[in-house]
Amino acid sequence: MATDPAAVPPSPAPRLVDQQLRTRAQRVIPGGMYGHMSTALLPGNYPQFFSHARGAHVFDADGNRYLDLMCAYGPNLFGYGHESIDRAFTQQLARGDLAPGPSPLMVDLAEQLVALIAHARWAMFCKNGTDATTMALMVARAHTNRRIVIRCAGSYHGSAPWCTPIARGTLPEDRAHQLSCTYNDTASLQTALDAAGDDLAAVIVTPYRHDAFRDQAAIERDFAQQLRAACNLRGAVLILDEVRAGLRLQRDTSWSVLGVEPDLSCWGKALANGHPLSALLGGERLRAAASSIYVTGSFWYAAAPMAAALETLRLVRDSHYLEQLEHLGERLRHGLAAAAHRHGFEFRQTGPVQMPLFLFADDPDLRLGFGWCSEMLDRGIYVHPWHNMFLCAAMTAADIDAAVEAADGAFAALNRARPGLEPHPGIKALMSSR
Amino acid sequence: MATDPAAVPPSPAPRLVDQQLRTRAQRVIPGGMYGHMSTALLPGNYPQFFSHARGAHVFDADGNRYLDLMCAYGPNLFGYGHESIDRAFTQQLARGDLAPGPSPLMVDLAEQLVALIAHARWAMFCKNGTDATTMALMVARAHTNRRIVIRCAGSYHGSAPWCTPIARGTLPEDRAHQLSCTYNDTASLQTALDAAGDDLAAVIVTPYRHDAFRDQAAIERDFAQQLRAACNLRGAVLILDEVRAGLRLQRDTSWSVLGVEPDLSCWGKALANGHPLSALLGGERLRAAASSIYVTGSFWYAAAPMAAALETLRLVRDSHYLEQLEHLGERLRHGLAAAAHRHGFEFRQTGPVQMPLFLFADDPDLRLGFGWCSEMLDRGIYVHPWHNMFLCAAMTAADIDAAVEAADGAFAALNRARPGLEPHPGIKALMSSR
Repeated sequence: MATDPAAVPPSPAPRLVDQQLRTRAQRVIPGGMYGHMSTALLPGNYPQFFSHARGAHVFDADGNRYLDLMCAYGPNLFGYGHESIDRAFTQQLARGDLAPGPSPLMVDLAEQLVALIAHARWAMFCKNGTDATTMALMVARAHTNRRIVIRCAGSYHGSAPWCTPIARGTLPEDRAHQLSCTYNDTASLQTALDAAGDDLAAVIVTPYRHDAFRDQAAIERDFAQQLRAACNLRGAVLILDEVRAGLRLQRDTSWSVLGVEPDLSCWGKALANGHPLSALLGGERLRAAASSIYVTGSFWYAAAPMAAALETLRLVRDSHYLEQLEHLGERLRHGLAAAAHRHGFEFRQTGPVQMPLFLFADDPDLRLGFGWCSEMLDRGIYVHPWHNMFLCAAMTAADIDAAVEAADGAFAALNRARPGLEPHPGIKALMSSR
Repeated sequence: MATDPAAVPPSPAPRLVDQQLRTRAQRVIPGGMYGHMSTALLPGNYPQFFSHARGAHVFDADGNRYLDLMCAYGPNLFGYGHESIDRAFTQQLARGDLAPGPSPLMVDLAEQLVALIAHARWAMFCKNGTDATTMALMVARAHTNRRIVIRCAGSYHGSAPWCTPIARGTLPEDRAHQLSCTYNDTASLQTALDAAGDDLAAVIVTPYRHDAFRDQAAIERDFAQQLRAACNLRGAVLILDEVRAGLRLQRDTSWSVLGVEPDLSCWGKALANGHPLSALLGGERLRAAASSIYVTGSFWYAAAPMAAALETLRLVRDSHYLEQLEHLGERLRHGLAAAAHRHGFEFRQTGPVQMPLFLFADDPDLRLGFGWCSEMLDRGIYVHPWHNMFLCAAMTAADIDAAVEAADGAFAALNRARPGLEPHPGIKALMSSR
């Protein structure tokens, strides 16, 4: 079928091990896999299991190597197995991780975060991003003695019963006193504010719109300012959910460039470069409320992830990682745009360049996106057809150029395969239900 | 004041570093500390911060060494920094921890748990114990399409809004459709069952009563059987919360000796000997419901804690750790009982010997308990005045004998100090509010 030999991808190792693992997983893991790392809604050739990770690359269970443009869905900011971060982690692990109380590193880390994040005067640590967003709601409700939280429709804030995007197994009461507005839409915000009346506890919002399955969008400065003003006027709490974007866009909150400060901010994923740690940061006004709630977890006070976070923050402060991510992201965006144009595709790249999302125009059931991603995978580039991606500082210009070259071949192959493409059954079902 | 020189404890290093850390923590952590590792409700000489942990011992920030009878509130089962467990962890960390998908170890671990835990046919992994109990409720509600969950008053199932023991910051709706009964009390169970009617989704229960501030109590076989029968009769789901007790009492669920199997069981703490990992296990009947809910977390699929869990389970299967814990626990119980008797104290030791709780008779405001624990701490033994403790397999008979010897001195000192003892202000306030 391929007429240009140069466009034929290197044949990947057959994914026999992955298939065997999937068969075994079907027996002992519900549905074979769950959550955001399930391949159920990914192209059929995507591996489910990975054996190795190093720098910007991952290796599937069959030994195939990929440039990983997902970065484990965000946690990988400086590279998998980063030398100085993992050394800080393992050295602390050898000294002590858990104990009957936290390590002095917890105080160091709280101080470092307060020094780095302008609005923050205090920090509470936890494990999941969902822990941080849930704690934020508790602090806001404790502070205000009010109930209502306004969220933007489609924004992801975690998978607890109050916020999981699939409500199965939850109660309507789990979402009581939540109101919805549309991201960047002043009128919808005003409607929600009017409905909340004097019972508004908080507004929770992501720093930019990074919802799955649709183009990403920057926050409009006016909208951010309106959120801030509305919370000020009503004594409500503005919560910025930085779990996904935190530390990839700014060395402060992602809104620091707008001059809009939240009252609370939620952090996770990249905070310790993949070691399990999340955090809720807050301003002085929320300190008493934060000390009044009871939240905890068996592993929240572990010292080794805090050692990793301290080294991660040192790199955030002292390296040019952010400028590098922007530079690499621009290179990728321009390279892909040129390749898509060459092959006649309208290829939408949205969001910050270091957190890109790729969607094809006129592709309502994502068959083009799936076809292209599938071809990219066969060329050793792991990209996602409907979730934003992440760049990391372990990537090089050569990695980006390899991704662009693979894209050139993938677009060519997509043109050839186009007449026979079918939508993924799961995506077809999902899209028809929306 | 001390007349017997032998009873004078070795003078601990002054806790200047701890004091400095507390002062700094007051500025950057709400209330100076939060959650179960706060010393706010512990004797005044207890250190807040720990620098090192090794085997059965921990070192506070000032370098004082303690035999740790809390085992980090449970996670430490085989010893802090256990050689083969931490080697498995660090070797996997060097290969790869997070990636865009889980490691093959996730399948291995699910298979091992299904092989070890009789009722289990599948496993889902998460980070917090609270994740596992929350997922259990979601699975039960998804399976039954019903709402009501029966809990035992006073039992701890985590700190999410639906279960945190201090409701501040939560909504009444967060606890909607929960009914309460009394542990081991058939009549109260029947009342709750009657109230639930045909809307009963689940009963969640700890394997024995390990509530804080009161004597622990074994599950009565009749009560366990009644729970099982009631769930069978009504098609409801029996959830066993093994987060705290799991793997310390049996090499299966803690109820395996009763012949009562749950439908779902929740695990955490000791599952990976302190590395962050929790799990929900379930039977065949719950598989479809478990695959229908959406739960996930950024760090849930990390491979290194799973490698640690695999080695922990190997030790569970292949070592005599359980028999050792029982032996050491009996030695401690008998030694403490004799020492208390010698000094004229009625000293109640309740719960399994490997998870003991100590309370003094006629000590409603815990002043005796606090006084004794404070003396124990000064003698290098870290015990808790109102929470159950935990033994680990790194403890030796010599460690236990040292604890008993310290107890002898602590009881003597307590007798001398008794007239001047005052209750801890926080405990006094807590007890008067109950």
